[in-house]
Amino acid sequence: MNKDIGPIETKSFTFAESSHGFKLESGRTLGPITLAYETYGRLNEDKSNAILVMHAFSGNAHVAGPVIGDQDPAWWDFMVGPGKALDTAKYFIICINVIGGCKGSTGPSSINPKTGKPYGTDFPIITIEDMVRTQKVLIDHLGIKKLHGVVGGSMGGMLALQWVACYPDSVECVIPIAATLKHSPQQIAFNEVGRQAIMADSLWSNGNYYGGDSPEKGLAVARMVGHITYMSNDSMEEKFSRRLTDDHTGFKFSADFEVEGYLQYRGQTFVKRFDANTYLYITKAMDYFDLSDGQWIPAGGLPGVRFLVIAFKSDWLYPSVQSQEMVRQLQMRQIDATYCEIDAGYGHDSFLIESEAEKQSHLIKHFLAKRK
Amino acid sequence: MNKDIGPIETKSFTFAESSHGFKLESGRTLGPITLAYETYGRLNEDKSNAILVMHAFSGNAHVAGPVIGDQDPAWWDFMVGPGKALDTAKYFIICINVIGGCKGSTGPSSINPKTGKPYGTDFPIITIEDMVRTQKVLIDHLGIKKLHGVVGGSMGGMLALQWVACYPDSVECVIPIAATLKHSPQQIAFNEVGRQAIMADSLWSNGNYYGGDSPEKGLAVARMVGHITYMSNDSMEEKFSRRLTDDHTGFKFSADFEVEGYLQYRGQTFVKRFDANTYLYITKAMDYFDLSDGQWIPAGGLPGVRFLVIAFKSDWLYPSVQSQEMVRQLQMRQIDATYCEIDAGYGHDSFLIESEAEKQSHLIKHFLAKRK
Repeated sequence: MNKDIGPIETKSFTFAESSHGFKLESGRTLGPITLAYETYGRLNEDKSNAILVMHAFSGNAHVAGPVIGDQDPAWWDFMVGPGKALDTAKYFIICINVIGGCKGSTGPSSINPKTGKPYGTDFPIITIEDMVRTQKVLIDHLGIKKLHGVVGGSMGGMLALQWVACYPDSVECVIPIAATLKHSPQQIAFNEVGRQAIMADSLWSNGNYYGGDSPEKGLAVARMVGHITYMSNDSMEEKFSRRLTDDHTGFKFSADFEVEGYLQYRGQTFVKRFDANTYLYITKAMDYFDLSDGQWIPAGGLPGVRFLVIAFKSDWLYPSVQSQEMVRQLQMRQIDATYCEIDAGYGHDSFLIESEAEKQSHLIKHFLAKRK
Repeated sequence: MNKDIGPIETKSFTFAESSHGFKLESGRTLGPITLAYETYGRLNEDKSNAILVMHAFSGNAHVAGPVIGDQDPAWWDFMVGPGKALDTAKYFIICINVIGGCKGSTGPSSINPKTGKPYGTDFPIITIEDMVRTQKVLIDHLGIKKLHGVVGGSMGGMLALQWVACYPDSVECVIPIAATLKHSPQQIAFNEVGRQAIMADSLWSNGNYYGGDSPEKGLAVARMVGHITYMSNDSMEEKFSRRLTDDHTGFKFSADFEVEGYLQYRGQTFVKRFDANTYLYITKAMDYFDLSDGQWIPAGGLPGVRFLVIAFKSDWLYPSVQSQEMVRQLQMRQIDATYCEIDAGYGHDSFLIESEAEKQSHLIKHFLAKRK
């Protein structure tokens, strides 16, 4: 079987073009709304083979395939394709950039129709629920009544949970990976440091930097702190240990150690492909997300829904105890929930790394194939 | 017994006033060098009861007693005083602000005699060994041939190790608390984020900000990320959970959650009492510190020296495995080393918190009192 998926174009779908716009959880309206999305494989005749893959914080619609045009590199290429876990020979895979994003969907860098200029911080605050409810408009537009699956890691896992919370009759398989029902204060704290780093940059200018220099230094610092939390102590040890950079002078404030050079590089490349205001809006959405009271589960439970909850042992940012709590709540309500903690060493980002996530692929493939 | 230590004045000692200055590990010279220090209790006749207490990264000479003048609050008041673990009725306690610091000892904010202006980044890079070797000049000046103890937490623990590495015949009891033989790449990475946050602030001006506005926003971000790493996930949960601030509007980029307000407050108060360049110099000194090859232990071992190594279970920044490695190396060389891992929940800062560190006080008191 050819495992190559071939080039996939990013499409876009626009709605809420009337003056009323789309009503957000905050009460504010937003419109028009454009969603950038990609699809892989073919929707079958009864439209029962669709799986929605949801990206993490800094992700985009380009989940798999080679890069065409101004696409970012595919972020889950090893998971999506013919014969892979999200098998494009069997399933119709959809991936949508969230609202608030900066990868083709409407966000703070989009033009505000009222002013003809980018929204900046006039963009309304959005929530994980807003992201899901706008995705549902596109899923409806595609004529899909029920998704065979909703799958995602990190924020993508929160989106998967929010999907079944909003539309319990429209989802069969829910696969939250390295996710949580709510952010802990430590998770909020790390996000807040990132936000403060951006807002401390004088170029941020209260979010109105479009058309001029953007707050790249602050955004790079935010990404650096994020990146530390995505890795494990052990994987950093393995990757860098205390090795010095080739050009270290021994004594200065540039990168003496490889780990410093790597973080600086990750920060500098990130600012070229990400918008600082999107960083603020999306981290806030994650921090506000809270399904921990279980109220979202209907009184009659979720009879048609199955959960596969995956955590990674070395993930200290979204520790496995958060996934266990998710499973505990589901099982207490007699909901079909399977839990698997994978002994991968790369930390939170394990779900994105093929060598770490072999077991993840296997689990997801068989979980999706299982028939009721 | 009166547990109150009474007001203690900060003294200062200046040396290396000749044009040659003091030779640093880097090969550069520094002079004159002033050390700010405090002493508590009385030096006995044979000068055998002196204990050097060494402060952590952002500490100072004022280890105990009420605040007088422009002193910072005492950072280890519960440990130092009559009848306390570092008993001023028995011992002569000394605490010295490290060079590179900003609490009275010579550092980047001091006047460079060659220019008549603050050093800024013309200040030479300093190491943990430089800090110890300059402290030794003061200890010699006080006429102390042998210290009964060297004690410190975090960087203070590294200094304690460096003391015995430099002067194995001048120390009896070595007590490194929540310390390490070397920083892991993760520890370097967190320090590097702090440095990058400071240097990203346009007011940093390559370190030449004295006399004008200082890079307070960058320094505050650095402190915020540091502060997260000093606490444990559990202590944050207990202290803040997901409680909202009183003045949160529900939706904005200021502090919605208490943990955000707390971090912002800690950042803002820190910048009033700390120098950004000192942050750069001292974190670099910590990152470069590396005694992990064991070469510092003399061929004949350390027959007159006893170690008490203390770690805290919830400390994820300086995990107990680092202290265990320290003990392993010492015991392999037949050196008298006792290890204790304390089940305190507050994370790395546990050694600074009285309620967490009761066992620490008890251990140290009895370890110091034990006679050979």
